[in-house]
Amino acid sequence: MSGWIAIAGLGPGDEALVTPQVDAALAEATDVVGYGPYVARVRPREGLVLHPSDNRVELDRAALALDLAARGRRVVVASSGDPGVFAMAAAVFEALEAGPEHWRALDIQVLPGITAMLAASARAGAPLGHDFCAINLSDNLKPWPVIEKRLRLAAEADFAMAFYNPRSKARPDGFAHTLAVLREVCGDERPILFARAVTTPDETLRIVSLGEARPEMADMRTMVIVGSSRTRIIERPAGPILYTPRSVPGEGS
Amino acid sequence: MSGWIAIAGLGPGDEALVTPQVDAALAEATDVVGYGPYVARVRPREGLVLHPSDNRVELDRAALALDLAARGRRVVVASSGDPGVFAMAAAVFEALEAGPEHWRALDIQVLPGITAMLAASARAGAPLGHDFCAINLSDNLKPWPVIEKRLRLAAEADFAMAFYNPRSKARPDGFAHTLAVLREVCGDERPILFARAVTTPDETLRIVSLGEARPEMADMRTMVIVGSSRTRIIERPAGPILYTPRSVPGEGS
Repeated sequence: MSGWIAIAGLGPGDEALVTPQVDAALAEATDVVGYGPYVARVRPREGLVLHPSDNRVELDRAALALDLAARGRRVVVASSGDPGVFAMAAAVFEALEAGPEHWRALDIQVLPGITAMLAASARAGAPLGHDFCAINLSDNLKPWPVIEKRLRLAAEADFAMAFYNPRSKARPDGFAHTLAVLREVCGDERPILFARAVTTPDETLRIVSLGEARPEMADMRTMVIVGSSRTRIIERPAGPILYTPRSVPGEGS
Repeated sequence: MSGWIAIAGLGPGDEALVTPQVDAALAEATDVVGYGPYVARVRPREGLVLHPSDNRVELDRAALALDLAARGRRVVVASSGDPGVFAMAAAVFEALEAGPEHWRALDIQVLPGITAMLAASARAGAPLGHDFCAINLSDNLKPWPVIEKRLRLAAEADFAMAFYNPRSKARPDGFAHTLAVLREVCGDERPILFARAVTTPDETLRIVSLGEARPEMADMRTMVIVGSSRTRIIERPAGPILYTPRSVPGEGS
């Protein structure tokens, strides 16, 4: 048996951000498993079987990949961004842990990619240049009180905050609550970045204050980053730069 | 004037993790500015001037890069990992903000890379598969009380935590304090990953409990990741997998 699984990050969209390591895995694969729009990014070729699936069937998709590898297939599980950040790697390991013992003998690799928050940060400047946190705002997988508690503690810690999955049609209210909590704990002046479809032809970047932020500025293709108390804007002819300095003043600086 | 600056992430070490976008910038550059060991990763060629510099002179290095670009040179600022995560992007923007007005007309791009925590996470499994934070443990740039406050709040928020620059010869005590605080707030059983020199020939991975963790398990080439209360270990013949499930149980799950 020479099957394997590579859980691979395709990055945020621009093919120039796909690592050579991921390209090499795709070149050797017999099967690609993943959410339809991500599998659609893989160039078809003879001998490569594509298995696109719907959203929200991560565990089924993971089990399919593990089963294919156990049968000797060479399987790429395609994630956007980085597979370890709110993506398929954890789902594959959940399925592995719950699955048959022989799956634990499989060759499983995680191939990192450029995750959305770092692509968005790069396009806007360096808002994550000091301590920060990453929070998935989808409440499919955790209750809202947990999200709100984390928002309040992260603000108290003065982290910059990167928010994945801020808003969907199925849950339009959560992001409005999030903005209300953030305004309460960070104040109206704090800058917030809405970075939509970064590195794709549809990319838009918008930096406003929390007081100006509106829920409809985000959708599921938007990465939202809120600055820390130290985050600054540099005005330029070509557009503003949003960045967080490296230091916090104090006895140690 | 056709000068530009590309603040580029070379990733954690493996050349198969350098994006084609960064390779393209290096191919067009006239100058590479950066910390010596990172500049040493760039292949020399005719017409390319390398400007290696010492550690801890980030602002001088940033000003050199901006000045070269203002003179029409095409400058890559070489960072390891991702330039926006505890690296050169914020330093360049600090220098830009403090510098002459004409620098604000420069063409400046940040080219993302695979940051150390995501490379380490990928090698170990998916410990950052749920909400997490990233903290720079160096107290060169912020006072220890700020670090300790953030540790306590991050633990209360139940984030997985990724620690950059955990320990150096110049400040051997800070990481011992960090481990003591973490044991107090997370308990002795919580898993901690020491991932040294990930993706290089020197790579070592070690997963222990906080109770077993010792300061000397980390140095400046080590990425440290502490799990959340939900982080799990899957035992396998080929070595353990460390991962954090995607969900938190509760009314919303």
